[in-house]
Amino acid sequence: MPRMSEENLASVRAEILRGARECFITYGYKDATVARLEASIGKSRGAIFHHFRNKDTLFLEVAHDDMARMTQAAREHGMIGMIRMVLHSPERAGWWAMRMEILRRVRTDPCFRAKWELDQLALQEVVTDRLRENAARGRIRSDVDVVSMYHLLDLVLEGVMAKLPAAAGTEDMQRALQLVELAMRQEPQL
Amino acid sequence: MPRMSEENLASVRAEILRGARECFITYGYKDATVARLEASIGKSRGAIFHHFRNKDTLFLEVAHDDMARMTQAAREHGMIGMIRMVLHSPERAGWWAMRMEILRRVRTDPCFRAKWELDQLALQEVVTDRLRENAARGRIRSDVDVVSMYHLLDLVLEGVMAKLPAAAGTEDMQRALQLVELAMRQEPQL
Repeated sequence: MPRMSEENLASVRAEILRGARECFITYGYKDATVARLEASIGKSRGAIFHHFRNKDTLFLEVAHDDMARMTQAAREHGMIGMIRMVLHSPERAGWWAMRMEILRRVRTDPCFRAKWELDQLALQEVVTDRLRENAARGRIRSDVDVVSMYHLLDLVLEGVMAKLPAAAGTEDMQRALQLVELAMRQEPQL
Repeated sequence: MPRMSEENLASVRAEILRGARECFITYGYKDATVARLEASIGKSRGAIFHHFRNKDTLFLEVAHDDMARMTQAAREHGMIGMIRMVLHSPERAGWWAMRMEILRRVRTDPCFRAKWELDQLALQEVVTDRLRENAARGRIRSDVDVVSMYHLLDLVLEGVMAKLPAAAGTEDMQRALQLVELAMRQEPQL
């Protein structure tokens, strides 16, 4: 295999992760066989596993990649903005399928769990920093600790992901999100 | 089979559902074979399927039974009280396993979905009635419609169920619930 520039390397890895995500979403982790991964990714197993050690690593990287995108969205638009992004994402069912596999692995694979928790902490840090800044500027209420706010937003995100595939529409969830925003903005009555 | 009194019949059905729930939780729907159901329930397939038409019906009834218990808890203690019940339940992981199967079936089985949605509507009615009453008595804020409140609580419930099996503890989720309570109680600043 010829040596690649850093840029090419990153683009090949991203291409592999995209195909792998598609495959995991369609078949679930267990039934995403190497043959199916090859078909979804459009590369041979040699090419795929040159970049990622094994299927386990591949799944971990896809999950990590999702979390990185979500954390970036939360940095730019806030956590509610990020949840709205998930809600309106054209690949709604995909988020759910990934999450189901992730929750399953978190329960059974301590190594996956440790890495997943690091990603969660990164999101928590981004979100609480932003909330603290907004509280300091008087944009949100300042009488509630931002960590509790983060944990509530995190439950709401998880709830949205669980409800997405079965939801007839997103209107109910949008109303719930508006209520969370309202609750975060208002100061208590004196 | 001798004829049973209504009471005996209900108790036998409850016993079958308890064993079936255990089996679905342990193996998942697909791998809960008839032989495993027999072992978990402690009855022959003949006895089991005398009361429930098939495995599909059995799963639907277990899910329906869970929802009925949750709806009853929400009627008595409010939805946040019911979510706390799930959070502190000794069978925490069980709730999650059932929910995973339910969400999967809701996506793929229109008949299951229709019946599941009826159960959801029953919960929504109980919760919104209670919220309306609390708003009328001045116990919670009256400027937010109770249906939005319900949808938020529903997302939080779903989030709690998703997070339960992976959570190191329940403290973070308890803090989030306190924040929801606070948000529901307070009137906006004038």
